[in-house]
Amino acid sequence: MQDTTYAYQQLLDFTIQIFKKIGCPDKDAATAAEVLLAADLRGVDSHGVARLTGYVRLWEAGRVNATPQIKVIHETPSTAVVDGDSGLGLVVAPYAMELAIEKARQVGTGWVSVQHSNHYGIAAAHAMKALKHDMIGISMTNASPLVAPTFSTSKMLGTNPICVAAPAGNEPAFVADLATTTAANGKLEILQRKNEAAPVGWVQDAAGQDSTDAGILKKGGALLPLGGDREHGSHKGYALGAVVDIFSALLSGANYAPWVPPFPAYVPMPQRQPGKGIGHFFGALRVDAFRTVAEYKRDMDDWISGFRNADTIEGKDRVLIPGDPEREMEAERRVAGIPLLPVVAADLQALGAKLGVVF
Amino acid sequence: MQDTTYAYQQLLDFTIQIFKKIGCPDKDAATAAEVLLAADLRGVDSHGVARLTGYVRLWEAGRVNATPQIKVIHETPSTAVVDGDSGLGLVVAPYAMELAIEKARQVGTGWVSVQHSNHYGIAAAHAMKALKHDMIGISMTNASPLVAPTFSTSKMLGTNPICVAAPAGNEPAFVADLATTTAANGKLEILQRKNEAAPVGWVQDAAGQDSTDAGILKKGGALLPLGGDREHGSHKGYALGAVVDIFSALLSGANYAPWVPPFPAYVPMPQRQPGKGIGHFFGALRVDAFRTVAEYKRDMDDWISGFRNADTIEGKDRVLIPGDPEREMEAERRVAGIPLLPVVAADLQALGAKLGVVF
Repeated sequence: MQDTTYAYQQLLDFTIQIFKKIGCPDKDAATAAEVLLAADLRGVDSHGVARLTGYVRLWEAGRVNATPQIKVIHETPSTAVVDGDSGLGLVVAPYAMELAIEKARQVGTGWVSVQHSNHYGIAAAHAMKALKHDMIGISMTNASPLVAPTFSTSKMLGTNPICVAAPAGNEPAFVADLATTTAANGKLEILQRKNEAAPVGWVQDAAGQDSTDAGILKKGGALLPLGGDREHGSHKGYALGAVVDIFSALLSGANYAPWVPPFPAYVPMPQRQPGKGIGHFFGALRVDAFRTVAEYKRDMDDWISGFRNADTIEGKDRVLIPGDPEREMEAERRVAGIPLLPVVAADLQALGAKLGVVF
Repeated sequence: MQDTTYAYQQLLDFTIQIFKKIGCPDKDAATAAEVLLAADLRGVDSHGVARLTGYVRLWEAGRVNATPQIKVIHETPSTAVVDGDSGLGLVVAPYAMELAIEKARQVGTGWVSVQHSNHYGIAAAHAMKALKHDMIGISMTNASPLVAPTFSTSKMLGTNPICVAAPAGNEPAFVADLATTTAANGKLEILQRKNEAAPVGWVQDAAGQDSTDAGILKKGGALLPLGGDREHGSHKGYALGAVVDIFSALLSGANYAPWVPPFPAYVPMPQRQPGKGIGHFFGALRVDAFRTVAEYKRDMDDWISGFRNADTIEGKDRVLIPGDPEREMEAERRVAGIPLLPVVAADLQALGAKLGVVF
């Protein structure tokens, strides 16, 4: 079966209706839907509307609070810790990112660590909020354990992404959004669907040996940290994933390491819970807290065009700037619509039927 | 010839004397020597006293100012930009890191971007300054271009390291210090000296193809970003190196991308200089700006022991915490001394003879 393509607005409206049906206030439903759909627009299909049913299942399991009382439980002029009250990460994260931006407005930078939250969609959806304020935005989150540290067979870390979004002048913004693993879990899922092998360096088997089985995670295997193996720097990817965990959970009081709650509602919660929910971390840096926006933007445009015009390896069209592919995908999908796999469309249809929303 | 081992104090005293001879004030000479020798203690031999002659050559070439007027040229409560006045990075960086710590004391976090500096030794020497204040320390720097972005044959970025140092309670601190490349340049130099091949994934040749020639950088080749190739996430290593450049130079007004001044004094300065000197970036986050130090340390100890006790792959002794190997090396070398290659010892002897300092 072919993918069917849906207009962004249609999917957005549907998603808003679904979130309202589970009890989200209108404003939260709109916020959550926009964050979720940002993934589909940017081509990160694994993190978008395909997960809507998963969020609803978490709510059904009592693990998502549709009407959270999000609050600041500690703060200084440049920092805060937010308790998400078990709300959707799609709602808690925008609250925390806005707080980071507000603090940056006051004292130059703002840094907010979040406890008691849930999955927040793509990291870029939050970090990019800083751009229109001429700020650099940072977003990271921990996630349920799929990744083995170097030399280990234990799954101890999530794919723990980091996003840094930096504004430019005439050039589009620089947006680096990366899982701290060789490959994101979504890419493995795609290979599994196609029944294809994974490249060596993406995953290991239960004994910690090289594997090309895209389904190895279900057999005791693990994703590998960026770098793949020790010789190619996997200890660096492991360290970066660990830094995300420390900022997101150790600074906030969220669950950390292998005790981060899983996204699929059918996976039982870890028996031990050293903290509350999932953790995130957000930062905002006002450019003019360092130098004039005009000087910065002039140099940033120069930086970007320098990389864009770098010599290419034969057979490669161009050197990309982080964020280029996702921005181009968004421009295309806003016009041509968002393609959904038949299985995803059927899933959304069933979800709509269950909750009384026409898909 | 065998390596000869020297007591830390002996090398420190010698280095202080050398820095004094080139005109550094007593306090600066001591600071610079301590930062430089931190590399030797931690086992990063490529960045330690072996580079002392290189620093002196930069001074001889008029590219290092031994008596800089380091000053803050812009600031907000949580940020500052420092002009290093072409001083030794070994002196400018500690000034900037202390400023970040002071700002964190005031408003929770401090963030300092630096222009007009020179090479600053190992990133960890600066970030770790935050630990004794119960703060998380961050340190990064750009460097002269050796790294090709994904799909490019042009050397556009330095090895641009990032260090994050996070305090713990009873456990030793977490210290991740990583070049954003598959392998640091120092490791290539070691292979060259031994006339050994580099693993595939460390470097590419002038055409951008796989190479195992450890000397390929002299033949138009380049280091590869962490990840190695696109399939294994090199676009992520490239993005991380770019983030370091943006924070260190675009926020400060230092030189960026391929225009960062080279360390070897015999390499001519880039013809174009869009900024001033080399750029660094420092951050300090007060733990108690987020939650109580006691709660954080309890969880951090639990986090660390969780990783330390993770299951190991057969044949591997243990799972390491970032910073473990360097801390153990330091403990050993403080007692047993620091081994220097004969060529390094001869170089220091000649340097001492030239400047009238007994080695």
